[in-house]
Amino acid sequence: MPAAADASHAPTLRSWVASANGHGEFPIQNLPHGVFSPPGQEPRGGVAIGDEILDLAALLTSGLCTGELQPVLAAAAQPELNGFLALGAPARRALRARLSQLLAKGAPEQGRLEAMLHRSADCSMSLPARIGDYTDFYAGIHHATNIGALFRPENPLLPNYKHVPIGYHGRASSIRPSGSAVTRPNGQRKRPDEAAPSFGPCRSLDYELELGIWIGSGNGLGEPIAIDAAAQHIAGLCLLNDWSARDIQAWEYQPLGPFLAKSFTTTISPWIVTAEALAPFRIAQPPRPEGDPAPLPYLLGEADQREGAFAIDFEVLLLTPAMREKEQPPHRLSRGASHDLYWTIGQLIAHHSSNGCNLQPGDLLGSGTISGATAGSFGSLMEITRAGRETIALPGGETRTYLRDGDEIVMRARASREGFASIGFGECRARILPAPG
Amino acid sequence: MPAAADASHAPTLRSWVASANGHGEFPIQNLPHGVFSPPGQEPRGGVAIGDEILDLAALLTSGLCTGELQPVLAAAAQPELNGFLALGAPARRALRARLSQLLAKGAPEQGRLEAMLHRSADCSMSLPARIGDYTDFYAGIHHATNIGALFRPENPLLPNYKHVPIGYHGRASSIRPSGSAVTRPNGQRKRPDEAAPSFGPCRSLDYELELGIWIGSGNGLGEPIAIDAAAQHIAGLCLLNDWSARDIQAWEYQPLGPFLAKSFTTTISPWIVTAEALAPFRIAQPPRPEGDPAPLPYLLGEADQREGAFAIDFEVLLLTPAMREKEQPPHRLSRGASHDLYWTIGQLIAHHSSNGCNLQPGDLLGSGTISGATAGSFGSLMEITRAGRETIALPGGETRTYLRDGDEIVMRARASREGFASIGFGECRARILPAPG
Repeated sequence: MPAAADASHAPTLRSWVASANGHGEFPIQNLPHGVFSPPGQEPRGGVAIGDEILDLAALLTSGLCTGELQPVLAAAAQPELNGFLALGAPARRALRARLSQLLAKGAPEQGRLEAMLHRSADCSMSLPARIGDYTDFYAGIHHATNIGALFRPENPLLPNYKHVPIGYHGRASSIRPSGSAVTRPNGQRKRPDEAAPSFGPCRSLDYELELGIWIGSGNGLGEPIAIDAAAQHIAGLCLLNDWSARDIQAWEYQPLGPFLAKSFTTTISPWIVTAEALAPFRIAQPPRPEGDPAPLPYLLGEADQREGAFAIDFEVLLLTPAMREKEQPPHRLSRGASHDLYWTIGQLIAHHSSNGCNLQPGDLLGSGTISGATAGSFGSLMEITRAGRETIALPGGETRTYLRDGDEIVMRARASREGFASIGFGECRARILPAPG
Repeated sequence: MPAAADASHAPTLRSWVASANGHGEFPIQNLPHGVFSPPGQEPRGGVAIGDEILDLAALLTSGLCTGELQPVLAAAAQPELNGFLALGAPARRALRARLSQLLAKGAPEQGRLEAMLHRSADCSMSLPARIGDYTDFYAGIHHATNIGALFRPENPLLPNYKHVPIGYHGRASSIRPSGSAVTRPNGQRKRPDEAAPSFGPCRSLDYELELGIWIGSGNGLGEPIAIDAAAQHIAGLCLLNDWSARDIQAWEYQPLGPFLAKSFTTTISPWIVTAEALAPFRIAQPPRPEGDPAPLPYLLGEADQREGAFAIDFEVLLLTPAMREKEQPPHRLSRGASHDLYWTIGQLIAHHSSNGCNLQPGDLLGSGTISGATAGSFGSLMEITRAGRETIALPGGETRTYLRDGDEIVMRARASREGFASIGFGECRARILPAPG
């Protein structure tokens, strides 16, 4: 058992919440935090358990968590979890231990807790925190290579890629939880064969599969986070769809990077799968290929190399209006794996703060698009269709290069390891609405 | 008199606050909003008048502003002005009219108000609002040309520049008010003659002179702001120093734009010089040079072209440790003018929201570096020294290419127009501390 695993991870642990046992996403070993609204009620903090959500605001008033746990629970019951995230790992761990007890089969509190459960299907989810700053990285080396190869086949990766965890600032205000629709953006675009740009609906709307990282405790301005302390700042993970308007991006991005091509919406799965729940799924960062430069010392940590990666698998699915009408299941576009990230999350955090930049509780990082080296594992349509040069054949005779109005992208993730109960992330799902007229 | 000017702009208007009359920055015609802390006290909203600050929290409890004004004043008295900014122009205008009455010479309330004044020199200033998102534009065409010419002398401006108001997302968490020190960042940098990058203190620390734009009322996600409605979303302006680590930037910025080269600190002047105070200084956007493309329709507004620019002049000064020791005045590095911006602020706002991106009250935009066409008007050392190839001679025999530890950059701005009292922005000032060891 990994050093960080404890009784709350035991695969034999079962819950009195029947749907949690054998649940693919939210068994009692997961206990992710989020913000939900029961029907007709105000948002408050909750924890997913099976097909239910435990209402932490109700738990707070129940007297079942007392002493030092009470302020922790109070923070986790808020409609924005920034205060809870700021408390850091010890507080999260303590609350997890108590929730694990309360929800375990045989807990004498079962009767009282049953009244605090809401069916997930009846509730709406909000963003779990006010996102101060959102930063999007580019740590998927196969994605960077695939995209680069479309434009520079002889030299796909730029010279800085293997030295610098490339990232850029993203737009925080337009991040939305799974289930919110995404409106196709209008924008300036200019094809190579056009003399001048025009303004209108994006012609090549794409998704990008990413891992989202929630920052817990932050750092002061001017106080970098050392690489082996970086993991302590990870509150948890989510799924992130970095919607991308490829035509707008191609025309606008020189010299200062993507802007309106990305800022129209970013979709995330609404649950914070905590660092504690993920502890058993930490794995060693895969060794770099022969000949690659070693990370500079500020990015090279012994603990980070030993357990800085995660055993998480992903899938991306497409549901078209025709599939929906015929009640067909969504079509899987790709599978991915987090070990295809060239940098650990710790390295992203250490790099981000290396210039003194202050990270704050509730900041969100994107990993960069997660693609594998081979077809079937590419995390965006731009890679799958080679920038629209090839079409995808869908069941029922449909085809796609980029996304059409009414299409829905669904992302799922699973952390798994021999000897442990797998845990999931919940869906990251959004449907495309037509551009405003 | 411009249509938007009213009695609060009359150049003959005088205040019973003696220092306000003839004050270069904060005469009674200005009345900028900010957040200040009297010595040993908590931050609250205030308005600058001459060398004093009127405490709006004290005014709120005085009963001198009643009725519909009371909630407006309550919002303007908070330690974060986001709520006040959200109220938009009518609320700001109403409060301005009342404050102008109360502070005018002969106001019967003078005796009661005198007790609500604090000497500015004794107070500390905070950021005026919680900045949700910060976006930095690139609207200074001479700056873009000067920088481009250093790398591509034959073709300095990229093909998109005259079509797209180029911008990128910046870092909100590290924005600090004037007077806060800026720590020289460490980072990866690689000179062309070096085989591999190294990590250490920035070797070419620069400033950039920009105008900051505070967003008042926002827009919903998916609801673009039309060009001729854009001005209504400007709450006010400030000065902005977009500190830049040129060596870090050169190595990191491909392909996703500036990141750690900028995110270590951005300094702003702490007063929101309101759109209402600036109304007399609105001018027509200068016509584009012959042969330049017309803006696309979504960027072309009749009112915006007629009064979308501002008559604001800037200066940038350098104070070195040697000058400080000898009690010499700071040395002026350059002067600039806002009419050198290729895009109006309205165009920046319309473009930013054209893809549906939602702007929120308290968002901050940077204009991009403001440079003129000729020497003496360049808004950064990179332009003045031609990327460090030339040195600047300072009084006392010192020289500079980029900034040294202990150097202090001071920016000032003035809006002026025949027939009106000039108004200023207050200083945007910060001193450089050495990089962490």
